[in-house]
Amino acid sequence: MSQMGAGPVRPIAIIGGTGPAGMWLALRWARAGETVIIGSRERARAEQAAAAIKARVGEHAAVSGLENSAACAAADILVLTVPFEGQAALIKRLKSAMTAGSILIDATVPLAASIGGRASRTVGVWQGSAAEQARELVSNDVSVVAAFHNVSAELMGGDNPLDCDVIVCSDDRDAAQLTRELAAKIPGIRPIDGGKLENARIVEQITALLIGLNIRHKGHAGIRITGLPPIAYR
Amino acid sequence: MSQMGAGPVRPIAIIGGTGPAGMWLALRWARAGETVIIGSRERARAEQAAAAIKARVGEHAAVSGLENSAACAAADILVLTVPFEGQAALIKRLKSAMTAGSILIDATVPLAASIGGRASRTVGVWQGSAAEQARELVSNDVSVVAAFHNVSAELMGGDNPLDCDVIVCSDDRDAAQLTRELAAKIPGIRPIDGGKLENARIVEQITALLIGLNIRHKGHAGIRITGLPPIAYR
Repeated sequence: MSQMGAGPVRPIAIIGGTGPAGMWLALRWARAGETVIIGSRERARAEQAAAAIKARVGEHAAVSGLENSAACAAADILVLTVPFEGQAALIKRLKSAMTAGSILIDATVPLAASIGGRASRTVGVWQGSAAEQARELVSNDVSVVAAFHNVSAELMGGDNPLDCDVIVCSDDRDAAQLTRELAAKIPGIRPIDGGKLENARIVEQITALLIGLNIRHKGHAGIRITGLPPIAYR
Repeated sequence: MSQMGAGPVRPIAIIGGTGPAGMWLALRWARAGETVIIGSRERARAEQAAAAIKARVGEHAAVSGLENSAACAAADILVLTVPFEGQAALIKRLKSAMTAGSILIDATVPLAASIGGRASRTVGVWQGSAAEQARELVSNDVSVVAAFHNVSAELMGGDNPLDCDVIVCSDDRDAAQLTRELAAKIPGIRPIDGGKLENARIVEQITALLIGLNIRHKGHAGIRITGLPPIAYR
């Protein structure tokens, strides 16, 4: 990654990326020297978001804004950080715009807030997890990776290093590896190989637990896994 | 707790406590000066387990062994650390032996291994979690607390401080507080107020994720929550 000068740039498109989770991932990756495309239903909104990131990172930041389909066409690393209630519809709409071989990094959490319930609870997803729902909806030539669920959006939007692990689940080992490398570019985040995509069932649930802890204790909770050898954290 | 000399001793009965999880909790609490009763279906087995703990902690250790019903009658803090497939039957059998006002600390995880599946997966429990199943089975005058799911039994069985948080969930705030105090007696464990018992749904799942990480990475995984103010850890 961040292959500036060492080959063609491989941009990261953050689809539906004008919400906090998408914006702050864009911020952190732009700071790390990655080329980031923010996608939105309206190009103008995406461009505004890109300008806001540039204003914080500096004019050298490689951040631009595009309409979602154009963002999918311009990148083969796609990141999805939308609320659960919008996930399936967005993937269906963009399916044909995703290029063969793309990697879809899904951070969706099926919070009960999606159906008028609490953000500290989840709803059941037929496929097992939001990430597995995404896998069912994309073409077979797109790899799905689940990651970034348990990162505090508020802390991501700040300037300090984070203090949390990102558990990465996928059935595509190369796509998982690339995602872990992208996660490691954000100061204080330690990526962990979380195994198969089905394990996203648990990783997604953890977010609801952390939201409950945040409400109860007024914090910005994250998790760290202890007791693993260093190899796990790559 | 550990009211030696400051009032009557309040023993902790570890029901079905001759497996690793129960044994090592007994070990750690005995070291902390607590009075521990190990319960087993056979008194002789419970006494053997108690003797094994004494051999490690020293003759001053206040550990004894009793048949499960007798253990329930002799204590009002009960800890359940049995495999999921044995949980419901054991609670039904011991229901009448539990005294009014008892606290049942349940560490059961509904691993798919219970039904011949993998320990890195879970089975669905009708009530939502093993802890909520326990609550349905005990009398109304017994409080259920979910805790100690995510502690590595192997590390608990050693002599070093642990490096993990214990998320404590209960609808009885006093019982949860007492459980957090008991957790804090084990070096390196930091208890966290995890809110209502229903949140055990997520905490139990985490164990399956950790088991998967252990298998994949050959570790003894635990979790730490980051980003909360100190008040959360009490």
